[in-house]
Formats: sequence, structure tokens, C-alpha cells
Amino acid sequence: MLSLQTYYDKKSMIKITLPDGSIREYAEGTTPLDVAKSISEGLARNIISAKFNGVTVETVTPLKEDGSLILYSWNDKEGKTAFWHSTSHVVAQALEELYPGVKLTIGPAIENGFYYDVDLPDGTISEKDFPEIEKKALEIARGKHDFKMRSATKAEALQLYQTQGNQYKVELIENLEDGTITFCDHDTFTDLCRGGHIPNTGIIKAIKILSVAGAYWRGNEKNNQLTRVYGISFPKQKELTEYLELLEEAKKRDHRKLGKELELFTFSQKVGQGLPLWLPKGAALRERLENFLKKAQKKAGYEMVVTPHIGQKELYVTSGHYAKYGEDSFQPIKTPKEDEEFLLKPMNCPHHCEIYNTKPFSYRELPKRYAEFGTVYRYEQSGELHGLTRVRGFTQDDAHIFCTPDQLADEFKNVIDLTLYVLGSLGFGNFTAQVSVRDLEKPEKYIGSVENWEKAENAIINAAKEKGLDFVIESGEAAFYGPKLDFMVKDALGRNWQLGTIQVDYNLPERFDLTYKGSDNELHRPVMIHRAPFGSMERFIALLLEHTGGNFPLWLMPEQAIILPVSEKHEIYAQKVLNSLENNDIRALIDNRNETVGKKIREAEMNKIPFMLIVGENEEKEETISIRRHGGEDLGAISVKAFTDLVINEINSTLKSF
Amino acid sequence: MLSLQTYYDKKSMIKITLPDGSIREYAEGTTPLDVAKSISEGLARNIISAKFNGVTVETVTPLKEDGSLILYSWNDKEGKTAFWHSTSHVVAQALEELYPGVKLTIGPAIENGFYYDVDLPDGTISEKDFPEIEKKALEIARGKHDFKMRSATKAEALQLYQTQGNQYKVELIENLEDGTITFCDHDTFTDLCRGGHIPNTGIIKAIKILSVAGAYWRGNEKNNQLTRVYGISFPKQKELTEYLELLEEAKKRDHRKLGKELELFTFSQKVGQGLPLWLPKGAALRERLENFLKKAQKKAGYEMVVTPHIGQKELYVTSGHYAKYGEDSFQPIKTPKEDEEFLLKPMNCPHHCEIYNTKPFSYRELPKRYAEFGTVYRYEQSGELHGLTRVRGFTQDDAHIFCTPDQLADEFKNVIDLTLYVLGSLGFGNFTAQVSVRDLEKPEKYIGSVENWEKAENAIINAAKEKGLDFVIESGEAAFYGPKLDFMVKDALGRNWQLGTIQVDYNLPERFDLTYKGSDNELHRPVMIHRAPFGSMERFIALLLEHTGGNFPLWLMPEQAIILPVSEKHEIYAQKVLNSLENNDIRALIDNRNETVGKKIREAEMNKIPFMLIVGENEEKEETISIRRHGGEDLGAISVKAFTDLVINEINSTLKSF
Repeated sequence: MLSLQTYYDKKSMIKITLPDGSIREYAEGTTPLDVAKSISEGLARNIISAKFNGVTVETVTPLKEDGSLILYSWNDKEGKTAFWHSTSHVVAQALEELYPGVKLTIGPAIENGFYYDVDLPDGTISEKDFPEIEKKALEIARGKHDFKMRSATKAEALQLYQTQGNQYKVELIENLEDGTITFCDHDTFTDLCRGGHIPNTGIIKAIKILSVAGAYWRGNEKNNQLTRVYGISFPKQKELTEYLELLEEAKKRDHRKLGKELELFTFSQKVGQGLPLWLPKGAALRERLENFLKKAQKKAGYEMVVTPHIGQKELYVTSGHYAKYGEDSFQPIKTPKEDEEFLLKPMNCPHHCEIYNTKPFSYRELPKRYAEFGTVYRYEQSGELHGLTRVRGFTQDDAHIFCTPDQLADEFKNVIDLTLYVLGSLGFGNFTAQVSVRDLEKPEKYIGSVENWEKAENAIINAAKEKGLDFVIESGEAAFYGPKLDFMVKDALGRNWQLGTIQVDYNLPERFDLTYKGSDNELHRPVMIHRAPFGSMERFIALLLEHTGGNFPLWLMPEQAIILPVSEKHEIYAQKVLNSLENNDIRALIDNRNETVGKKIREAEMNKIPFMLIVGENEEKEETISIRRHGGEDLGAISVKAFTDLVINEINSTLKSF
Repeated sequence: MLSLQTYYDKKSMIKITLPDGSIREYAEGTTPLDVAKSISEGLARNIISAKFNGVTVETVTPLKEDGSLILYSWNDKEGKTAFWHSTSHVVAQALEELYPGVKLTIGPAIENGFYYDVDLPDGTISEKDFPEIEKKALEIARGKHDFKMRSATKAEALQLYQTQGNQYKVELIENLEDGTITFCDHDTFTDLCRGGHIPNTGIIKAIKILSVAGAYWRGNEKNNQLTRVYGISFPKQKELTEYLELLEEAKKRDHRKLGKELELFTFSQKVGQGLPLWLPKGAALRERLENFLKKAQKKAGYEMVVTPHIGQKELYVTSGHYAKYGEDSFQPIKTPKEDEEFLLKPMNCPHHCEIYNTKPFSYRELPKRYAEFGTVYRYEQSGELHGLTRVRGFTQDDAHIFCTPDQLADEFKNVIDLTLYVLGSLGFGNFTAQVSVRDLEKPEKYIGSVENWEKAENAIINAAKEKGLDFVIESGEAAFYGPKLDFMVKDALGRNWQLGTIQVDYNLPERFDLTYKGSDNELHRPVMIHRAPFGSMERFIALLLEHTGGNFPLWLMPEQAIILPVSEKHEIYAQKVLNSLENNDIRALIDNRNETVGKKIREAEMNKIPFMLIVGENEEKEETISIRRHGGEDLGAISVKAFTDLVINEINSTLKSF
């Protein structure tokens, strides 16, 4: 039996575990902000959100039990979420003041900023109204109002919104359980809210309304259409300015815009949405990328295969893809006279398993590495389609490695090498990796033996270490059929893209009954690795366009040089230069239209052609070409041979051989 | 008013026009055989069939009006048809005698021989019964029985077969009109028959029953199953012997057999019938062929494009392909949430038209030549599938040229040049061409102006002449949308394959409203040319396999050389040789299994590897390799450099640059 004092101590003190594993004791009721202060005043000034035992809390929420506490600043994703969520309250208040009678619905933080869906009593909000909304919201923010959470009963909550005639909030509340309903107040404003705010409005220093769009209540087109107001906010004016510049740059680099300007690809309403048509320059670009990868893959021991774009429905029932994609994707293709049903292939793996099954393998013949630029089709709703990044048909730079469990570690390292080579050759130096492993507490979720899982996870982690990757391990993020490693690259605009997944698979070998004869003369199951360094040609080219703004590495450019004769007189010399370049495999063309050199240069700049070669009187006489680099740098008049060397050197400096 | 003499003359004399255009007068009732005799006795001996005014007649049919007469010998397709059709009567008689109660149904001539479908009273016919049937049929043939046609009324005809209880013939007769029913008698045998026989059974000197198969009455699986007896016959025993040798050779060269042995492709029941899976060696072979054509096409000014394998149903309604393929092909693909319907593309042309429509063109920018290795899907009934020659999915080496009518002649010539280059590089020296033009008497059948048709037909005929093609002009064989030229190649077994169609098209430019701005600043319709030198990669590779027996031209071989170390000791030297060959782009491998050189040679022979390089004690010491050519020729020990030169020279001698 405990003494009263011990009981009292136990009750009044709580143990807080911090992310570094240290445990500190605090009085019950201590807030996250207090904890931050106990560590350092500097830290406390930066803390704007917190998570306690996995649940987002206010920085001023009293902590009443032992637990793990994570403190977030603006630099954390969670900090930004709290910041933007809080700003949405402020903007909602501004909208209430500017548009009396407006009905609020929901207003979450999103990846970049926040939105608030509102039902306007009458009229609309347009771009010209944005400055007024921003001004009003900023005025409110400057009042340094605290965000204060309070509980309410369901009846109270319903009454509030019924009085206002706000059927949206009423509907939300009706779906909540009594006892779980909370409001957040600041200044004169109140909103139904689950929490997760910054300490007060004063730290919001810059607010920008970005756009408005129509949105159906609860995303259902049968419901009322609401006005969605998108915005973003920052703790410093300077950060907003930088963000807007980035946004401007991103617009310029939008792959849909560049794809059209550079004549790389197009879409046709007649062919169908989400089904890109690759124009000659884009098809040539794709082919160069494919050949580049093919060459490296050949050296790495891959073999190309070719498989059809459809397969019997049964094939995908066997693989499990029908269960995953069947209902929600392109529907089965029936035939006129027979009972067969086919599906557009959503994945290449079942076909490659069937190729593996063509003949028996001995362990001495493994690994087999089957690669294919395989075009797959997956249905996406038309509203979700976006340029080349969200399409209905795309070509994976797919490969499947079939190996023994003992070979897995080496194969994994080889795939990392290949992926690093590919990313490096394309100018992506800035990347991190994530290793997704089992949740050890839920062994029932996973297929395959514990021994094989351990082997595979260790193989991946060791490979990542050995290759010096900057990686994190995420427990419980593995697929049910195997652990994986994902590469995340940061593009020139600082955005993250997931590329180059390497996935271990114990499931398909089981489902397709794949075997090899081991050294013991018995049949064993091989392990499969799925991998695609580009992911898909479509998405990768979109990324490359936005990363480079269309100024691809020289080896990849559709046209590497354009020859600009000053007048008709120099066309023969221009043709001679062209022949010489083509003999050295430099992709060039002549612009011999009857236009000024100035206009030709402007167009060549727009077409992102890396080198403009001007040929006139002097050049012809001295057998030189005057070189202008894309962007304007003047490299002077040099010989064709010197220019050829320059191009070859530049290519060799980026495109190392694998 | 005519004098009686003139009337009598006119009535009794008929004018016969012969294929050379000459017109001869004969008494009414003259037979084709009489006409032949009037030209030469030698001709008459060889004539076995005839066509009068476009209708097949007996050689003994009395001619009663003016008309065009064509006489056929065994060397003509029509002669063979009459020969084999006549033999089917003889074989049917033999079957009636050997299998009392057998019910005859139909027995036509086919491409190589004939078949007769019979309903056997009981038992079956198997291979061991063939000699007896052949013997009996030959006995009958030796009787030199004339084939005699006679008319019968429907009632008479029905009664004959009702008495026999032959419901099949009864059904056939019921569908005929009274007054059109004829029988053919020879010896004691009678058959319902439209005619087209050789003069008598005596010229049939050799008969071979080839196989038996099941066949449903009228091809409908709900009907009775009949026994189909396949056979062939010849006017000389020697010709049968040669044919059987060829058949034996064709079996050895069957692309399905070779494809499996050489590990080029496979089929999977799970993926689906008629959908080839290309194994590594086959995929590499395809790629080499594709790269070869791409390179030539690039020089010829083609641009590659890439388009999806599906398109909205509407696209194919616009193109007219839905009307042509829709009902009988793969059915539309529905989507879960939207009303869109897609089709697997049966053709690439609609997609290429949409690419052309991406931007406006001036006449100065034409021709545009869009090429794509485009995989298309067309449903075939499973019974009709055959290896790679009849499949459900295949990749066309497709291109569409969009040009002005004035450019058509030059474009056509360029396509012929390319096709000749392609066929020549692949060892097809033996080919003819067919130009298909309008039927001038049915102008209503054709789309497009008469002026354009004349221009196009003249362009094709002139191009064919200029390029020195051995060609025929077939009137009325043009598609409704334009004239065309087909290449027919003869393979090593003497079989004809249609390859490399070049098709002019006035229809799709109309349907897709394609335009260009002419020099008059007005919008005009371009002309389209469809062309595919290979036709499809699948069918072409099948043909190439059967033509070469797997011994492809050296530049195309999956493996050009195999290094055979005499023992383990020589593996390092073997590897050195391999590296040297690979540096010279020679595809080679080492067989370092622990087997005898003899066994390794036998396997390399089976794998059709052109060169076996044996390396042992002497070779290593003298830095040579001992070369054995596929087939057995011993080229002695030479240096690696000398071997490399040998390979390069042989490749350059077949693979000229375009």
C-alpha cells in the first residue's frame, strides 16, 4: 500500500519522454510550451505546435499523464500545418466580417497553405477582392489573439449553428459523438474545431489569398456548390515574397506549358483524356532516355523482354491485381464469340512471372533480370488527371529480378548503384531515401517467413548504409508482401518527388508458383525485386521539365545546336557546318527562314536550344562559327572542331558511363 | 434488215477474245479445248481449265456467245484449283467405296490441295488408312474417266440425296434456286457440283492424303462434327515427292518450333492465346530489326511518335474502324465512374491523324512522315490463331505520310526505295509486286476526286516502272479509299508472302478534316500514305524464321559466335577473346560448362550460332582461335583480329547503308 505522500507525488508528477529518448518529470498540467521553456527560452519562442502520445495538441494544452512529446517549429511539416490551419480561422473571420451572412463549412491546412470552403450569401469572390481579404485578415492577426479551445455539448453546438442557419456545420456536428465536440475561439471568432493551433495570431506576419475555385459540399456533385478560398501564410514577409517568386517560376516551368511550347507531347479530346500523344521531339527525348537506361541495364545484366498490353482477367486474379484495381479501373474487355475476358494490364509483373515460368531454372542460372518499357493502363477520374503526372496510360521503366534469398543483398546493392547512376546523370544530386520495414508488432499482416523478412530488411538497410544514402527507416510502412526502399529527390524548386522505388516481393513468386532448383536439388521459391528508376517515362519527363525548366542536360536535348545564317548567301556554308556536326552525332538544324538573326535568336532562346551558331561573312571566310549559349553568353568565333570538342566534353562531364 | 446469210453467220460464229487482246472467230459451240487446239496441239495437251467471261467453265463446255477466254494449265493457280477440285471427286469416290454409308458434304480445292468433309457411318479414319485411300483413288484415276456436267431439277436433286439419307446435300440443295443445279459424273460417281474440272481423271498421276481433322458442318459448333480429309495431287509423281520434301523442310522450319528451340518467344495460357511473350533473345532480335528500320527511316525523313494503345470509341467511329472492326473485335472498355468507352486500337492511323491535327501546317512543311512501332489488337477466334502469323496483338512497323497531291509521286518512290532496301538487307531477293487500281466501270465505289485517283494511280505505276519492279496491275482491287501497291516475296520454300503494302488514302484526311495551307493561302486536304515494310514484327519474324530456318543474316543473329574452351585451363584466354569481340560489337558468349567440346559443338549447331570458336592449348599459345562455321565448315586457326574482320565484312556485304 502506497503512502499518501507517494500517492500524491505520483499523481502530481508526470514523466515526459522527448524525441531524443530522454525522460523528464514535470508537474501534472504542464503545457508543451512550459516543457519547451524548461529546455531553453529560444526553443520556446519557436515552438508553434506539439504532438503528445501521437495526438496533435495545442501548445497550451495541460498535459495530465506520462507520455511522449514532440515539439514543432515552423521548420517542421507539423508546425506549418498548425500555422496554416490557424490562419484559416483568421481568414474565415475576415470573410465573416467582409461578407455578412457567409456560411463557413470546413477549412483545413493543405500541402502548401490552406483553404476554406464557404457558402456566400450572394455575389462571388474574385481576384480583385483578394487584397481586401488579405488586409482584413492581417489586421486581425496583428491583434495577437490567443487561440483558446473549449468543449461544448452536442446540443449547445447544434443550437449555435441552427440559430445561424448554417446547415453545413449542423450536418458535421450531427455526425460527431457527444463529449468529443470542441470549439476554438480567438478575438470575436468561434469555429467548430478539433484543435492544433499556434499560440496566437500575432506570429502570422504575411497572408496571401492565392485563388478561388468551386467545390461541392463534401465533394459530391449532387450537393451545393461552395466557394473554396485558397491561401497561404508565413511568419515573415520575406518568406511570402520568396514563395510567390517560386510560384511564378513553377508556373513558367509547368511541364504542361513547356511540353506544348517545346512540342514534346499533346493530348487529344478524341483519343481521350489522360492519354498522352508523344510528338516527334518528345518521342525522341523518351527514346534517348530509354536508350540511356537500356545501355546501363545491359551492363548490369538485365535482359529486355516484350509482353502484350492485355492479359486474361484470370491472370490478374492470380496475381491479386484484379482485387486491387479491378472494380475501380478500366473494365474487362469482352470478346464477341468466346467466353474469354481480358484486362488492360495495370502492371507488368504478372507477364514477367509467366516469362520466368517458361522454363525451369537452376540456382546457378539466377538471378534473372527481366526489363521492359511496359505501358500500363489504370483508370483515373477525369478530375484527377494532371498533365503527365497523373495519366491513364504510362510507360514504366520496369524490371523484375528473380533471385535466391542469398542473392538478395547483392542484387539490392546493384539496383541502388543503377538508380544513383541514373539520377546523377540527369542532374538530381539532392535526394534522400526511405526504407520501409515491417511493423514488428503486427506479424499477421505480412506474407513470407520471418527469416526471409529479416534477411531482406537487413539487406536493404546494409545496402543503404554501404552506399552512403541519407535514409530514414519507417516501421510499418512496408507492403504486406515485402520491404522496400524509396528515393525522394528534391527538384530545383525545392519540391520533393518520390522516384525509384525498389520493392522486395515474396507474394507473386508464391501466387505464380515460381521455383528454382537449389544446390540441394530441391525446388525453392525465388524472391522478386520490382524496380523502376524513372518510375514512369511520363512522370519522369514532367519532373525533368519542371526541374530543368526545359534546359535538359546537353546529352538529352532534342536539338543541341541551331545554325543561323546571317543571310541566304551563307546557306551553303551553314549546310557544310551541319554535315560536320551530324557526322559527330551532334543534333543540329539550320534556321534558314527569311527572318532577322535577332528574331531567330529569340525563337531559339524560347525553344531552349543550348547553342546558337551564327554564320556570316567573317565566319565563312575564316571557317569558324560564332557561338551564343542559351541565356546569352557569347563564346566568340571558334572552329567547328573546337565547338564539337566543347559539346563532347560537356556531355562526357555529366554522362559518365555506368 | 439483215440478210438471212448475215443473220446465219452472226448466229453461228462467235468472237473469242484471248488474253493477249487478239480476237478470233469460231463456230458457236466450240469448246475451250477446241480453241487451244486451234492455236497449237502442244497448248491443248496442257490445258486443264478455262474461264469464259470471268466464269470458270469446263474445258469441254460449248461456248455460245462472244466473250473473253482464258486457258489455264497446271502452272496457273486456276489450273491447280481445277486439278485439286477434280481430285476431291476421285477421293470422295474412293471413300464411298471404302466406307460404305459415308455421307459426302463439301470438298473444295484449297491453297495447297483440297479437302473433303464427310460424315462417317461409324469408326474413324486415321493415318494408317491413308495408303489404302490413296491406292483406291489412284486406281480410279487411272481409269481416265471424263468429268461430265449435267443439269438437274431441284426435285430430282433432292430426291437423290433424300433416298441416300444425306441431310447435308439436301440442305445445300434447299438453298439453291431451281434451274441452277448441276451434277458432275465420272465413272460410277456423281456429285452435286458447280463445275470447274480437268478433262479427265487420267492426268492425276499422284495422290497423297495429308491429314484428317474434325470440322463442324458449316463451321458451326452446334452442328454435327464431320471428318475432314486433307489431300493433294499432282500430274507427276516427281512433283509429289518434291512437295513432300518441302513439307518436311517446312515442318523443320516451322517458326513455332524454331521459336521455342531458339528461345525467341512463348505463349502463356494464363496471359491468353494469340498474345506472344517475347523472351530475351526474341526481344533483342525485334529490337535489332526495329533499330535497323529506324535508322533507315531517319535518313528517309521519318519522325518517330508514340501513341497509346487505346482510344475513345468515338475516335474509331470517326475513322470508320469501329464500323469495320467494332462488332467482331475486342469489345469496348467501360470505365467505373464516367460514360467514356475506350477501344483497344486496331490501327495506329487515327492516332497519327490526331497528331497531325495538333498544329496547322503549310505546304512548305509537308510531307510529314510519322512512324511508330505501334502495337495493335484485333480479336481472332481461337481456332484461327497460328503461332506468330495469326495473333491477337501485334506490332506494326507503321508510318503515315501526309503530303500534298503533288508530292505523292516522289513519296511513293521513296517508300519503294525503303522497302527494297529493307527486303534486300534481309535476304529477300525474290519478289513481285501488285498495283491495285480502281474498277473504272464502278466510279461510285470510290471516295476522292477522279483527278486525284488518276494522279495517284499514275504515280504508283510510274514509280513501279521506274524502280524496275516486276509487277501486275489489278483493276478493281483498290480499296474504296485509294490505290495501293503490295510486295509479294517468295520464301526459301517457294511460298508467297504478302509484305510491305503501300496504301494511298483519301478517306482519313476527309474524316479527320486534315488540312494544310497551300501556296494559294487556301486550306487543302493532304493525301495520306500508309506503309509498313515488315507488315508486323510478329509475322515478319515468323517469315524470317521459316525463310532462313533460323539462320538469320549474320547482323541479325542473337549470338554471332560462341567460344568453346577445350578445358577449364583456357577459360581466362576465352574471356580475353570475348572481351576483344565485345569491344568490336560482336555478340558472343562462352560455353564453359564441364562438357566435351563435341557436345558443345552439337548444341551450338542446334542453336544456329554462326561461328564456334574453339580455344585450347595451341590457340592460346599462338593467340589464335579455331573457327568452325555453323554447318561444319572448318576455317582453321586465325587471329581474333582476322575473325573480327571476317564478321564485319560479311555483315557489310549484306547490310548496305540506306
